[in-house]
Amino acid sequence: MPPPDEKYSAVHYSDYLNLDKLLTAQNLRSVAFGDPAHDEHLFIIVHQVYELWFKQIVHELRSVMKMFELDNVDERSIGTTVARMERVVDIQKLLIEQIRVMESLTPLDFLDFRNYLFPASGFQSLQFRMIEVLLGLKNPYRITYNSIHYSQVFGQQEKELLNELENGQSMLQLVERWLERIPFIQTGRYPFLEKYSEAVTHMIQKEKTAILDTNILTDAEKEQRLKMLGDTDTYFQSVLDPVKHEEMIADGRLKLSYKASIAALFINLYRDEPILHTPFTMLSRLMDIDEYLTLWRYRHAQMVLRMLGRKIGTGGSSGYDYLQATAAKHHIFIDLHNISTLLIPRSELPVLPPDLKRELGFYFSAHNA
Amino acid sequence: MPPPDEKYSAVHYSDYLNLDKLLTAQNLRSVAFGDPAHDEHLFIIVHQVYELWFKQIVHELRSVMKMFELDNVDERSIGTTVARMERVVDIQKLLIEQIRVMESLTPLDFLDFRNYLFPASGFQSLQFRMIEVLLGLKNPYRITYNSIHYSQVFGQQEKELLNELENGQSMLQLVERWLERIPFIQTGRYPFLEKYSEAVTHMIQKEKTAILDTNILTDAEKEQRLKMLGDTDTYFQSVLDPVKHEEMIADGRLKLSYKASIAALFINLYRDEPILHTPFTMLSRLMDIDEYLTLWRYRHAQMVLRMLGRKIGTGGSSGYDYLQATAAKHHIFIDLHNISTLLIPRSELPVLPPDLKRELGFYFSAHNA
Amino acid sequence: MPPPDEKYSAVHYSDYLNLDKLLTAQNLRSVAFGDPAHDEHLFIIVHQVYELWFKQIVHELRSVMKMFELDNVDERSIGTTVARMERVVDIQKLLIEQIRVMESLTPLDFLDFRNYLFPASGFQSLQFRMIEVLLGLKNPYRITYNSIHYSQVFGQQEKELLNELENGQSMLQLVERWLERIPFIQTGRYPFLEKYSEAVTHMIQKEKTAILDTNILTDAEKEQRLKMLGDTDTYFQSVLDPVKHEEMIADGRLKLSYKASIAALFINLYRDEPILHTPFTMLSRLMDIDEYLTLWRYRHAQMVLRMLGRKIGTGGSSGYDYLQATAAKHHIFIDLHNISTLLIPRSELPVLPPDLKRELGFYFSAHNA
Amino acid sequence: MPPPDEKYSAVHYSDYLNLDKLLTAQNLRSVAFGDPAHDEHLFIIVHQVYELWFKQIVHELRSVMKMFELDNVDERSIGTTVARMERVVDIQKLLIEQIRVMESLTPLDFLDFRNYLFPASGFQSLQFRMIEVLLGLKNPYRITYNSIHYSQVFGQQEKELLNELENGQSMLQLVERWLERIPFIQTGRYPFLEKYSEAVTHMIQKEKTAILDTNILTDAEKEQRLKMLGDTDTYFQSVLDPVKHEEMIADGRLKLSYKASIAALFINLYRDEPILHTPFTMLSRLMDIDEYLTLWRYRHAQMVLRMLGRKIGTGGSSGYDYLQATAAKHHIFIDLHNISTLLIPRSELPVLPPDLKRELGFYFSAHNA
Repeated sequence: MPPPDEKYSAVHYSDYLNLDKLLTAQNLRSVAFGDPAHDEHLFIIVHQVYELWFKQIVHELRSVMKMFELDNVDERSIGTTVARMERVVDIQKLLIEQIRVMESLTPLDFLDFRNYLFPASGFQSLQFRMIEVLLGLKNPYRITYNSIHYSQVFGQQEKELLNELENGQSMLQLVERWLERIPFIQTGRYPFLEKYSEAVTHMIQKEKTAILDTNILTDAEKEQRLKMLGDTDTYFQSVLDPVKHEEMIADGRLKLSYKASIAALFINLYRDEPILHTPFTMLSRLMDIDEYLTLWRYRHAQMVLRMLGRKIGTGGSSGYDYLQATAAKHHIFIDLHNISTLLIPRSELPVLPPDLKRELGFYFSAHNA
Repeated sequence: MPPPDEKYSAVHYSDYLNLDKLLTAQNLRSVAFGDPAHDEHLFIIVHQVYELWFKQIVHELRSVMKMFELDNVDERSIGTTVARMERVVDIQKLLIEQIRVMESLTPLDFLDFRNYLFPASGFQSLQFRMIEVLLGLKNPYRITYNSIHYSQVFGQQEKELLNELENGQSMLQLVERWLERIPFIQTGRYPFLEKYSEAVTHMIQKEKTAILDTNILTDAEKEQRLKMLGDTDTYFQSVLDPVKHEEMIADGRLKLSYKASIAALFINLYRDEPILHTPFTMLSRLMDIDEYLTLWRYRHAQMVLRMLGRKIGTGGSSGYDYLQATAAKHHIFIDLHNISTLLIPRSELPVLPPDLKRELGFYFSAHNA
Repeated sequence: MPPPDEKYSAVHYSDYLNLDKLLTAQNLRSVAFGDPAHDEHLFIIVHQVYELWFKQIVHELRSVMKMFELDNVDERSIGTTVARMERVVDIQKLLIEQIRVMESLTPLDFLDFRNYLFPASGFQSLQFRMIEVLLGLKNPYRITYNSIHYSQVFGQQEKELLNELENGQSMLQLVERWLERIPFIQTGRYPFLEKYSEAVTHMIQKEKTAILDTNILTDAEKEQRLKMLGDTDTYFQSVLDPVKHEEMIADGRLKLSYKASIAALFINLYRDEPILHTPFTMLSRLMDIDEYLTLWRYRHAQMVLRMLGRKIGTGGSSGYDYLQATAAKHHIFIDLHNISTLLIPRSELPVLPPDLKRELGFYFSAHNA
Repeated sequence: MPPPDEKYSAVHYSDYLNLDKLLTAQNLRSVAFGDPAHDEHLFIIVHQVYELWFKQIVHELRSVMKMFELDNVDERSIGTTVARMERVVDIQKLLIEQIRVMESLTPLDFLDFRNYLFPASGFQSLQFRMIEVLLGLKNPYRITYNSIHYSQVFGQQEKELLNELENGQSMLQLVERWLERIPFIQTGRYPFLEKYSEAVTHMIQKEKTAILDTNILTDAEKEQRLKMLGDTDTYFQSVLDPVKHEEMIADGRLKLSYKASIAALFINLYRDEPILHTPFTMLSRLMDIDEYLTLWRYRHAQMVLRMLGRKIGTGGSSGYDYLQATAAKHHIFIDLHNISTLLIPRSELPVLPPDLKRELGFYFSAHNA
């Protein structure tokens, strides 16, 4: 560590940013082989920009995860995590926008240097894999490309790093643990699940009566409506059943524990209470990150389709087909999306007991008095 | 028609835009039923904005199609069509951005008025169906939602309109016909297909020799490379075979005729010739429209997932699953994307005979002399 | 109000959205005068979409202002206001993106129908003026276009509406009042301003000593650094002086009262305290709205420049010059931006007394015990 | 140059992109001084990404300028230049979007490491200055910041490079020369300027008669209309006067020569002729680049306002004021924007003689026959 007054040493923009390293890191293979292709420059820059942003995302994720690793998550830090997750989302939007620039490289121009790149591929981006694993896309959840394990393209050191991350706690797991510990729910004082269950039953019953009583629906229409209602009823019952929940986790259809899922439901339903507002925003940002990650996969698939087409008739799945499959299936926080199916209108929401409600609020006026 | 000097009659902004009609067209059902929900206003505005943009897209598509309906497409109009297609793409980008605003409606807030909307649904947007059919997504190419024909939700008049469009020429068909008539190709003077085929064979042969001769690859690597090359060879042969092409059309895997496909290939390969530059841009814009249409479907699917979740365990496919399937399969100009697989590097491109090359150019300098 | 079971009456998408009204509201003047111009359709649609979004913005602003009108703003509603303001920002982003579509109308194409529009103009958008006035851009703060009062282009009824808004409380005023009432600050218990002032003095003194003591700066550099520091000192003193503050309000350089400004400073400095997190986000969204409003003005100016140029040499200011001036000067929440100049590093921040700190937090763990 | 078969040497993604250099180039000063600030990482990454994109823009500009340096610009290359300029515009859009990410760094968080950066500043970005100068923003056109020459912050080598660029041909100058040589205009065969001038006079006269003859305008309205018309007349006359044009160049109000301006006017008026379509697109892209460059300046100014505020009352212009002034005044291709004021409706456009028209077209049908 330098002596304190060193901080007054002047620094020039280009030294601060290491521009000598940064701006000499573009070595075109087409130039090296004496066959310069103008657009290879773009190809390199685009990928380097991606890697810089990936580094930033890793930096943000690690810092957020560190805050969640504590046994008692400091409530002051939830606001900070929300801000950092929002930043990740803003970066993801840029990554997606950037595909537009990549698409300015036409298939014909790509052929001018494509030969020189073999077998380099985006599959070899360590940082992208790190982001996936940090978030929670661990190996068992992955679909594979032509049966190859994703870490096979890396060297020993990278493999070990990925392995370590696979064995560590992911964001998904940390958030699960945090949700499981959220107080207020299922305490002796307030049996949330019971109250919620009653409210669902009451809502469905009321709806049923109204349908049967109305005279503006035909019998056929009534039947259709009642059938839909029945499905909804069955659905709620199955989702609230801890045994079925375990089965769906075993199946790979769900990821979050029963307890964490119920806490997430509680936060969604009572998010208007001041104390739950920031946690609700946190869950929303996790859904955003998931949404933009799959959107990026989809746009990436589209770009590959445009650049390489879809070889009809050849064996093996095309890069396009693989990427599109990941866009459909590599959801990480799908459980949070599924909570939407469990929401009930505010008008049906069980009223919280006054003391719980007070604890969930905070009041400027109280301090004013 | 008013007398000419009427054009000097003053017009006020609000009359010109019919704001009295426009700004009184938001009738909230939740308000009508005495149970006002703040966010229903957003829900209506978002959909109305969609419908206004859809009207604009239909306006542009129809005008472009009209230009292509002529037996001799006026070359002056290709520039205009490119500009109008670019406008459609810009509008599509807005439609996609707009989903972000829609997502500010949370699932819980949606429940405040969702009940009042039954059974209104985006499936009932006539203009959206018109856009699909005008572009070329005719009924046989569609996947269905729970086995229901897409036009079943419309009234008699709308059904007839859609039927008429289904029976008329789509953009896809008009472009196919235009491509089929493009001169220069396969004239007696210049056997493009033959020359191209030779170039492909030569390119693959050269590559093969190089792989066999090098000593920096191991035998296993050589084998892998040669296998890839063999696949490529087989692929080119199959795609250039008119009989196989017919089979793939019958299968639904291809849409454009053999002749139109070859013309599109020619345009892509020789797009640097001045006369082909605008047609190449035209084909690129069609690909853009297709790309953004499927992107819109994907984003729409994501929004539905967020709003309604994915009812695990209930029968029937969810809205999310259906929408995501359309994002994967409702490609209209997939044939144009597939042309990428047929491109060869400029260095391998057969040189055009001088007289053809002259015809494909235009020269300021000639007029200067 | 209809009987309750009426809510089960089926509604069709097109009726719900009033599409018969909406999609027949595009009356091209060029068509009416027998001289159809293709692009007038776009011109109308773009402006109609603007007006629909403006209506939505007014809807959101009014609802937020209503919450702030209460003498005791319900803390539960701050979360809701943040969400609605974020929605306004998302809409503003769309309005700005939309200019790209408008720019696809080229100046030459505009000439095909421009003559028919006289004297309709965006200056005549009532809703846009409402948004400006609701936010707080009241008449005295406006620059005028060729000396004309902005409401002169409207009819009697519209003028009265604008007048009423001018006389009512704006968002700026409501937020000011809300800030003025925020507790914790300047109570007998904790003299915030005094503590803050001491911290500033201490920070500047420490910096001064460090500069004088270091030996890595030349005398000239030291002098330059000390001068900058002196400026900063003077600046802080002047800003914290209530008399000077009053003068700057009289000048029109500031808008928020001294008391409200201090509260906003407090919120910015201690935003990490859980209870202040949402108020801090609220202030940030107000700054966003201001930022995107001026950005829209700037983009609008650019579009006008592109469409009409800048008539060099003619008298009177051009539309472009006027619009660009509004982009520079029609800031509404500039005071909030200026707070940045008063921030001091967290390391210099006065530590809050424990009891105040406890009141500003909320603790899950406490409830857990 | 390596032997040809070396191209088959395998290359790994991370080596190809020099990730070892790239991802070790983030050295946080706050860390070096033992006082780590989380957000400094973002600050560095954002600026590094800017510099990578700047390098790409320089790469594109230089390649385009090289094509324009030839005495006879190859018409085949105009298509390529358009594509590369479009890419530059797409990159500019990203640069602007990226400011949103930068804004996620709050003023308070910036204070955690701001002290360590002195006096590094964006003013020291060599590549940004290169872009400005390459495009045509040479020193005489600049406004200065506190009277300092922009190159003063650089070392000797950088100063020389900038000096060389200042003395070389800029894009503006190359385009001017290219426009000056465009054939068809002012040849003996077709006196464009004369015909255009007649058309303007005829258009204004016709308009005048119509106003005088109508009976739906009041006398006051007629007078207002005639005054506007008179202004337009005067304006056209002045702009078409070569002597006045010279004066305005001397004033700094115009940049392009009279001859180049007339050619640009011709291209804009007759852009529907096939041969002029690509040149018209080229000019439009230059306007886009200018527009997005000033938009970037404006957004940058907004960001600075947010981060640092606007020190009211201190001497010297603030960074915000300076940046906003550059957004208003550092236009490079303003002359192209001003051409909009000279356009006349297509219906008034002088008809081109048939032989000229034929030369401006190209006809597939001709080859078909």
